[in-house]
Amino acid sequence: MPDYDLHHHGDREVGPGLVDLAVNVRLPRPPAWLRAELASALDSLAAYPSPVDAERAVAARHGRAPGEVLVTAGAAEAFTLLASALRPRRAVVVHPQFTEPEAALRAAGHAVSRVVLSEKDGFVLDPALVPDDADLVFVGNPTNPTSVLHPAESLLSLARPGRLLVVDEAFLDAVPGEAESLASGHAGVVVLRSLTKTWGLAGLRAGYVLAEAGVVARLRAVQVPWSVSTLAGVATVACCRPAALEEAEKLAAAAEADREYLVSRLGEAGVEVLGDPRGPFVLVRVPDGGRVRARLRDAGYAVRRGDTFPGLGPDHLRLAVRDRAVTDGFLTALREIR
Amino acid sequence: MPDYDLHHHGDREVGPGLVDLAVNVRLPRPPAWLRAELASALDSLAAYPSPVDAERAVAARHGRAPGEVLVTAGAAEAFTLLASALRPRRAVVVHPQFTEPEAALRAAGHAVSRVVLSEKDGFVLDPALVPDDADLVFVGNPTNPTSVLHPAESLLSLARPGRLLVVDEAFLDAVPGEAESLASGHAGVVVLRSLTKTWGLAGLRAGYVLAEAGVVARLRAVQVPWSVSTLAGVATVACCRPAALEEAEKLAAAAEADREYLVSRLGEAGVEVLGDPRGPFVLVRVPDGGRVRARLRDAGYAVRRGDTFPGLGPDHLRLAVRDRAVTDGFLTALREIR
Repeated sequence: MPDYDLHHHGDREVGPGLVDLAVNVRLPRPPAWLRAELASALDSLAAYPSPVDAERAVAARHGRAPGEVLVTAGAAEAFTLLASALRPRRAVVVHPQFTEPEAALRAAGHAVSRVVLSEKDGFVLDPALVPDDADLVFVGNPTNPTSVLHPAESLLSLARPGRLLVVDEAFLDAVPGEAESLASGHAGVVVLRSLTKTWGLAGLRAGYVLAEAGVVARLRAVQVPWSVSTLAGVATVACCRPAALEEAEKLAAAAEADREYLVSRLGEAGVEVLGDPRGPFVLVRVPDGGRVRARLRDAGYAVRRGDTFPGLGPDHLRLAVRDRAVTDGFLTALREIR
Repeated sequence: MPDYDLHHHGDREVGPGLVDLAVNVRLPRPPAWLRAELASALDSLAAYPSPVDAERAVAARHGRAPGEVLVTAGAAEAFTLLASALRPRRAVVVHPQFTEPEAALRAAGHAVSRVVLSEKDGFVLDPALVPDDADLVFVGNPTNPTSVLHPAESLLSLARPGRLLVVDEAFLDAVPGEAESLASGHAGVVVLRSLTKTWGLAGLRAGYVLAEAGVVARLRAVQVPWSVSTLAGVATVACCRPAALEEAEKLAAAAEADREYLVSRLGEAGVEVLGDPRGPFVLVRVPDGGRVRARLRDAGYAVRRGDTFPGLGPDHLRLAVRDRAVTDGFLTALREIR
């Protein structure tokens, strides 16, 4: 099995003065209404945090019972909780995808089997690739870094008694209508969500798990006490309000339009876009990708290297969707380099 | 072994309208200068957090190398990291003390041996009680809930090759001069610190571990990525500045004077104060403690029950040190009840 730096993430690729196409956070800062709520909450930091209000808000947003919700310090915490709480006989991670699930499983001492989706098939989910005896399966939807959105039906065909299917929906609120989400509740399915990307909150650590109550109880039993800060709780409540959900939907539509623009500009430039991107980033393949990435950096643009993702290599680059002006500048730089 | 609710903490005992003597956080909110720094940092939440600046600041404050520091989401995270990263053959917790170390060890599947210090000896640390084959030992200093400050010399007599001695110094910045601290670095000693109590930051989750670099690396390997939020990092840097350390020292001196006043008023009222309290709380023994606690609650005062701490029972109550006016009101209520 080739070795990948599973702990490498886009935040290591940004730097002073660089235009950031490496990190998938969409806003440059949280919106003003959210910053105002967080600022008000600074007065109440002396009290220990409680997850109760946030868990109620999330439950109401997704039509779940509060006992089916666990708020977490970012989606990243959820991977560690799953790895600590569960004792899988065979854990499978469907790659290419975000590497922290595999890293968390390995750190907890579990063996991990990799299923690698085929690039030439556009990274579509082939349920037949997942071994029958897998009792814990991780899939991203839409998948980071391929941007492929798997149909809910394909995902559900992976669910079965005796297996937990974990669907990382960290980017699903960037898909208009939250298409293909499994958040509403399915037997044997665990859904992970993040507030980080849509709301510019990577620094706050706010996410949540949706699962059957028994699974939530097992995760809660190994969670660090008071793990979710007061401010993360306040942000979670705020981002579940109808007005925030409407705003997220508009942001998702804008991201989609911006992505289509990026894809069309990449097409004009002769850059190969892989799969059928549906998230707020796209995966491309460029010959001599390592050199291109270094020269883009010299030209002031940070893009995410692909070679730390199992199944990808140095010619794969992930590009965050930005507004048209940034995309235009990026394409100009890219054309000059190639 | 008797069963205790190891997950019970003072924050469960407070309630609307109650004067809080149950939780050991000392300020009603973070100081204005700290809230201002946190408010400024709200603009930078879109970026993923990095622990680098905070770890440098902590290292400089304690005269340690940055590699000997791990910032954590509150001291509570440190217990979970120690329990996940280490494979003790025999873990010992010296009680009565904060129950999360034992809870974290048990949640991670480790057996825990309890050493219970003697109430009639004032809960002083008797190193002879710790079994020779213990390879992981947890002690609090000053100890929650007894408020006893163990001499550095006694603690160091517990350190030896092949054993990690974990000293929870979460309240040590409330002791003038940080007397008896082991933060400056000793072989085989791990020190845990919290910013929560002194700075009114329980809701933010900010603390750190000081240990030999090899131990820090092992803990870091099992830490959730980006576990410490940007705001916790900002607070950590701010609270390590010389001006903050001076302010902490003044707060510690004030807490000491307030504690002496509380102890003298309790003495006048014939309430037995246990041990030699040196922290910002005191442990008392009152006959029929369960009833007294309930009646204090009716009278508007929340105090911390003692019977969830191994070694203590229903007649033990922990009282947070507050200012003289609160103490006077509390003593009036207590006298009326008894």
